[in-house]
Parts: sequence; structure tokens; C-alpha cells
Amino acid sequence: MPNLYVALTHYPVVNKSGDIITSAVTNLDLHDISRAAKTYGVKSFYVVTPLKDQQVLAQRIIAHWTDGSGATYNPARRQALETIKVIDSIADVVEDIKSIENQDPKTVVTSASRYPASIGYDDLRNEMKNGRPHLLVFGTAWGLAESFVSEADYILEPIMGSTDYNHLSVRTAAGIILDRLLGDYN
Amino acid sequence: MPNLYVALTHYPVVNKSGDIITSAVTNLDLHDISRAAKTYGVKSFYVVTPLKDQQVLAQRIIAHWTDGSGATYNPARRQALETIKVIDSIADVVEDIKSIENQDPKTVVTSASRYPASIGYDDLRNEMKNGRPHLLVFGTAWGLAESFVSEADYILEPIMGSTDYNHLSVRTAAGIILDRLLGDYN
Repeated sequence: MPNLYVALTHYPVVNKSGDIITSAVTNLDLHDISRAAKTYGVKSFYVVTPLKDQQVLAQRIIAHWTDGSGATYNPARRQALETIKVIDSIADVVEDIKSIENQDPKTVVTSASRYPASIGYDDLRNEMKNGRPHLLVFGTAWGLAESFVSEADYILEPIMGSTDYNHLSVRTAAGIILDRLLGDYN
Repeated sequence: MPNLYVALTHYPVVNKSGDIITSAVTNLDLHDISRAAKTYGVKSFYVVTPLKDQQVLAQRIIAHWTDGSGATYNPARRQALETIKVIDSIADVVEDIKSIENQDPKTVVTSASRYPASIGYDDLRNEMKNGRPHLLVFGTAWGLAESFVSEADYILEPIMGSTDYNHLSVRTAAGIILDRLLGDYN
């Protein structure tokens, strides 16, 4: 099994004008990305926001499917949402992983932009075979703040399809990236 | 460029109990799948429902982003949603493609179940290189009705990750399948 953790962060991200903001939690991000995380054997899916009311909202959505009537109605949904941990900051995510793994994870940020130091999918897939924990970070809104991107161990290449249009939703991008890193098919 | 069309159908699909139903249109299905379709050069994304009020709802969502204030606010979203055609039935989709391409498309259905006659991703990717139009059909709710699946030219292998959990959202599954069929990376 892969030794991979995923985080979706709502701060620090940028808005359309490039200002650093805290974005709102989106219900279907929790559902879609937790289902993809469960499919690909991700160890935990961290939903990161410093806003207490947004943490409460996220916890309420999760509880509906893990403890509430949703848990009996749709057990597959429960299994997915159980992988979620709601947490204050990426620094806290790193601490949490460290407490589980007894070592720092390598941090990998995703972006729709290409950077000179970007790592490709096959290279990261190979690197992950060393068994060391890796943390894959997705941003919401218009993407992760530059200052945050520059501090990561790796910046993953953007997803390019058959065109120069690259405006996938974070839900879709997370699924495709997990498939490229962990999928197996022919 | 690939000669591929995508359809998301709301009938005939099954509910949790296996009954054939017409499902409701989901806003984020239109956004996420049109953005993935645009990314991978899909020619049109058909949203299929026989219900007139659901067609009106889908058209209203699309118009907000293609003609309304959304079009100036977010031009990338407009480009994606412009690929959508709202239509009554898969039969009408096939007729529409035939009128454009002067030949019937090969129909490919997607499913979370494995069938004896399933086609793999590499095989379909190679087959599509013949330039003939292909129509990739996704179901909503608990998936496409069996009667519908059995009439298709091909049934695509289910997406399996690193686990036996296979409950991706249709939004995520559409993105991963387009990437497997048309993506290019290393």
C-alpha cells in the first residue's frame, strides 16, 4: 500500500486577483476527494481550515455520513468520509503525520502552473516506492499561495490534457493525480 | 485531436435498489465534467434527461456562465460550459453526432462493475486512433441500467485503484477516464 496522505487546504490560497484569502469549505470536495482517497489507499485526507465555523461545518457534514442516518443509508460513503481529519493548518498536518510515522513527510504541492523545479508523475511515482510518507497538498479557490508553494519539497507538474485549457476542478484534479501516481491499468 | 464525445445520462439509470429511475441534474456535474471535457479536447458534452424541467434547469445553469454575468467574471468557465448540449435521449445524441460526422459513433459505456466483454484503457485508446467518432457514456445515481449497458459497442473496464473500494463520484470517474484515454505525461 502507498504511504500517502492528502490535504485540501482553504488557507493560504489566492482569489482571482491574487490576494491571499481563506476560502469556504465545499461539500462535494469532501465527498469526491475522500472517495478518491479511499479508492487509491490514501492513509488520511486532511481538510485544512483555520476558521472554527468552517471546521464545525465540515465536521457536521462528515458526522451525517459516519454517525448519522447517512451511515446506514450508504456505508460506502461512510468508509470514504471516515478518512477525513479536519485540522487548522498544514503545519499541524505535518505534525500529525510525524506522530504516526515517526518521520517528516515529504511535501508535494499541486498547481495548474508549471515551475522550473516541477517533478513529473513517473518520477514521483518511483520516488514514493521508497516507503517514506508523502503529503500531497491541493489548494482551493485560485490555488495555493506562492509563498506556500515555494516551501514544499516538490511541486508536481500541472495536468495537461490534449489542449492548452487547464482549468480542472480540484475534485477532478485530485482524482486524476491519484490515478497517475497510484493507478494500475492497461 | 481526439474524435470523442461524452454524454452524462440521467435516464435510464438505477437507484440503490436497482429500480430504473430518472435522476436529477447536479450542478457540479455540469461544471466538473465540462471542464474535464474541455481539457481533453472532447468535441461536445451531452447532458441527457427526458425531463423538460430538468432541461430548463440545466440550460439556466449553463446560460449563467455563457451569457450571464458569469461569462465576464470567469471566461474559462464559459469555455467549458459552452461544450454542453442538453438533449432528450442517448438516441438523440447518436443522431446529433451522425449529423456532424456522417457516420454512427461507436458507443462506449462506463461502469463500476466488470463485465466479461469489458475493453481495457490501452485497447480503447488504440482503437480511438482510427479517427472514428466515439461516444463515452456516463450514468448518474447508481449507474446505467443493464439493458442500456448491453446494447453498447464497448463496456469500459471499471476504474480500480490500489484497493477494492470502487465508489468514485461520476465527476471524478469522468476525469480519470478521460486522462487514461487521452492524457499524456511522464
